[in-house]
Amino acid sequence: MPLETDREEPMNLERSSAGLLTALKRAVGDSNIKRGSDIPEAALRDWSDERGGTPLALVTPRDTDAVAAALRICHDYDTPVVPQGGRTGLAGGAVPSEGAVLLSMAGLDRIDEIDTASGLMVVGAGCILQRIQEAALDAGFSFPLDLGARGSCQIGGNIATNAGGNRVIRYGMTRDLVLGLEVVLADGTVLSIMNRMPKNNAALDLKHLFIGSEGTLGVVTRAVLKLHPGVGGANAALVAVADFEAAAGLLRHAQRALSGRVTAFELMWNDYYRAVLAETGVRAPVEPDHAIYALIEMQGADADAERPGFEAMLEAAFEAGLVADAAIAQSQREVEAFWSLRDGIAEILSRRAPTINFDVSVPLARIGACVDEIRAALETAFPALKVIFFGHAGDSNIHLVAGPITDIDPTGHGIEKAVYEIIRAYGGSVSAEHGIGLHKKPWLAYSRSENELAMLRQLKRSLDPKGILNPGKVL
Amino acid sequence: MPLETDREEPMNLERSSAGLLTALKRAVGDSNIKRGSDIPEAALRDWSDERGGTPLALVTPRDTDAVAAALRICHDYDTPVVPQGGRTGLAGGAVPSEGAVLLSMAGLDRIDEIDTASGLMVVGAGCILQRIQEAALDAGFSFPLDLGARGSCQIGGNIATNAGGNRVIRYGMTRDLVLGLEVVLADGTVLSIMNRMPKNNAALDLKHLFIGSEGTLGVVTRAVLKLHPGVGGANAALVAVADFEAAAGLLRHAQRALSGRVTAFELMWNDYYRAVLAETGVRAPVEPDHAIYALIEMQGADADAERPGFEAMLEAAFEAGLVADAAIAQSQREVEAFWSLRDGIAEILSRRAPTINFDVSVPLARIGACVDEIRAALETAFPALKVIFFGHAGDSNIHLVAGPITDIDPTGHGIEKAVYEIIRAYGGSVSAEHGIGLHKKPWLAYSRSENELAMLRQLKRSLDPKGILNPGKVL
Repeated sequence: MPLETDREEPMNLERSSAGLLTALKRAVGDSNIKRGSDIPEAALRDWSDERGGTPLALVTPRDTDAVAAALRICHDYDTPVVPQGGRTGLAGGAVPSEGAVLLSMAGLDRIDEIDTASGLMVVGAGCILQRIQEAALDAGFSFPLDLGARGSCQIGGNIATNAGGNRVIRYGMTRDLVLGLEVVLADGTVLSIMNRMPKNNAALDLKHLFIGSEGTLGVVTRAVLKLHPGVGGANAALVAVADFEAAAGLLRHAQRALSGRVTAFELMWNDYYRAVLAETGVRAPVEPDHAIYALIEMQGADADAERPGFEAMLEAAFEAGLVADAAIAQSQREVEAFWSLRDGIAEILSRRAPTINFDVSVPLARIGACVDEIRAALETAFPALKVIFFGHAGDSNIHLVAGPITDIDPTGHGIEKAVYEIIRAYGGSVSAEHGIGLHKKPWLAYSRSENELAMLRQLKRSLDPKGILNPGKVL
Repeated sequence: MPLETDREEPMNLERSSAGLLTALKRAVGDSNIKRGSDIPEAALRDWSDERGGTPLALVTPRDTDAVAAALRICHDYDTPVVPQGGRTGLAGGAVPSEGAVLLSMAGLDRIDEIDTASGLMVVGAGCILQRIQEAALDAGFSFPLDLGARGSCQIGGNIATNAGGNRVIRYGMTRDLVLGLEVVLADGTVLSIMNRMPKNNAALDLKHLFIGSEGTLGVVTRAVLKLHPGVGGANAALVAVADFEAAAGLLRHAQRALSGRVTAFELMWNDYYRAVLAETGVRAPVEPDHAIYALIEMQGADADAERPGFEAMLEAAFEAGLVADAAIAQSQREVEAFWSLRDGIAEILSRRAPTINFDVSVPLARIGACVDEIRAALETAFPALKVIFFGHAGDSNIHLVAGPITDIDPTGHGIEKAVYEIIRAYGGSVSAEHGIGLHKKPWLAYSRSENELAMLRQLKRSLDPKGILNPGKVL
């Protein structure tokens, strides 16, 4: 029989968690708390292969006050909190910590206002990205943040991870589309920074403390989003080039000739291009015997009226010797067909599973050499491994997919180390757009100096001294 | 005769400042320190009317290590430090504190690198903005940050104040043009965040702690700047509209029709337009009997080729009833002539001195009503006061100039209170682009909540616990 002292701690914990749950129920309402097997399986994971711990409860507050109350209670009880959006992250940033309260933002699924005269929208953190895109469109605007998870991801999660996507080259990251934020701090304080002006230099802009913080410094509850003018369509071309220097030259030429209107510049190396043709059966717009393929897109008010300028840009690129071969989309349907080559990655991933996938960035000038070096290093270390390279190269972002890895490097750790060591040597980032979460924690120091890590820890201590917000993530 | 204890403190201070100066001389070199009357008069003020205290010394380090050494020493001696760039600020952010070491960045006047393949430039904090603009141009690019002080302001100061200027509507604030930063912290720690990628989500982006912090959290020593494609010229029009709603409609129409290519949208209310015609003798491109005048500009690769599209946009605006009258520039010289109306503010300021000048922002939709309310309030309170309204309205930024104030409100305080109370009621900012410095400290709480101010103070305590960096500024 155990000594009484042996039992005291668990009993206190039990009492303590009972008190916590009672307080939470009072704060957010009985029906907004789930426990044990009532917690949906989906709340236990995200789109990565990270596995977290067993949560204490899943809480779904319906407004900012309820989020603040829930955080105040968890803070009082020293209980970890894991904020969850659409759980579409690829870095494990939203998977449960052991014994944590999962704080779902799904109850904050609101569009509060569309101010067409100011070109902005006010939304709740739980609003699905696609709903925001469609509401902007209906109002004659565009909300240009766009990524594969658009139908499931929530804007709060996009903000917390500073999501990137397909059109960063023209419209920036999520950060660049956020005018204002409302955030609840670790102790339940509501910090309203709901700025509606493109220009506001009344002291430091505090919203940048939370954009990209992955829920470790505060919980985003509302946002003021910047809208862009609506677009009527796009011109696009699939351009084959001889090497990366020609690709970079083509981008520079296109940006100059089109006055910075390039909305996407996606590169696909030959290995990717052949793989996507083989796996998807899409017809090749250009022969598959070139080194690199660039998908250039220019969205605009009137795609037909803008086509001559787009074609003139490509003709001049031909004359300058930058282009080996090219196909120009003659309709919006052909624009979509070109994009299906890029979107075909989803099929490649399922055909080659299990794969290991990278989201890295390198200064644009060095991408060509970096890709060559990674390819050579992996060929040497893992001769049987299939690797494909592609990505939002106009933004310095490369993705590579290696796999199946089953019989080659089942944990993927050896492949990761080989790739990230080259990324470090090139002054690149181990996470271009997906964030750090759990998955990339071991590699963070490859892209951030000791002084930067010290400053990140200092901010965490200052804003969340009890360490209850998304503990164990990022740092 | 004073007691010995009465004399001890000054004597220690004397000894202490002798030790400090000896250490600083060793760190940065004898020739880089000036004291007393050797300190140039220009170092004692900026372009505002703020007056600071008497500095202990002016130190001009020649590299980052010397900046770090100087800060480490001042930190050890608990001595305040005031960083100084080109001292062109209008808020008093760079005027001396009593007994402070002035830290001039003029010795860090370097362009380290122009990477044309990545579209970026690496510069020292002391580099003059115009030199950066010209170097970008020579390399076939554009560095689009542009403001009246371009020939004197330093990029480090632009970054510390998150400077705005004429083309924010297309290229953003200084923040949006900074990829990476090197900062020296209060205790002399060098924090290198010299990122070169548009996409980098490897943990929180720390540079935003320092952009717009006005030298209160760290001293910017180097930066990686983002370059835009070079431009060949501009199309521009001066458009008279019946009211603010028509102006806002015109902007929305133009952004849509031109696929977001508007590079400037400056409004001049009738009072400004008449004043600039009277004070400068510039010929009126459009009759001076309309409510508001918009200067619309679209920079681009080839102004001649882009003119038909620009004209079509204006014709459609006419047909939609948005335009009362308009003149379209037929040459780059006429584009400049239109800008001379806007730049004529310099002459108005000198003719009407002493004036009181405002740099405020208001959500775009509310600018028209806000201007009307401010005009009415000032007419009631100060019937003899002349007031003119203009500004970067496309970015939500309004400037207004009131004066001469000599016989009406000599301190300007009554006028300030009247204006800022209306700005507060409209949810606007007391500083759109100039920062807070000393000048706007009394009004900061009009635009930031108590929780925001508490967070700003908390960050200050965490990053600069001794409070030596630009003390008394902003907070």
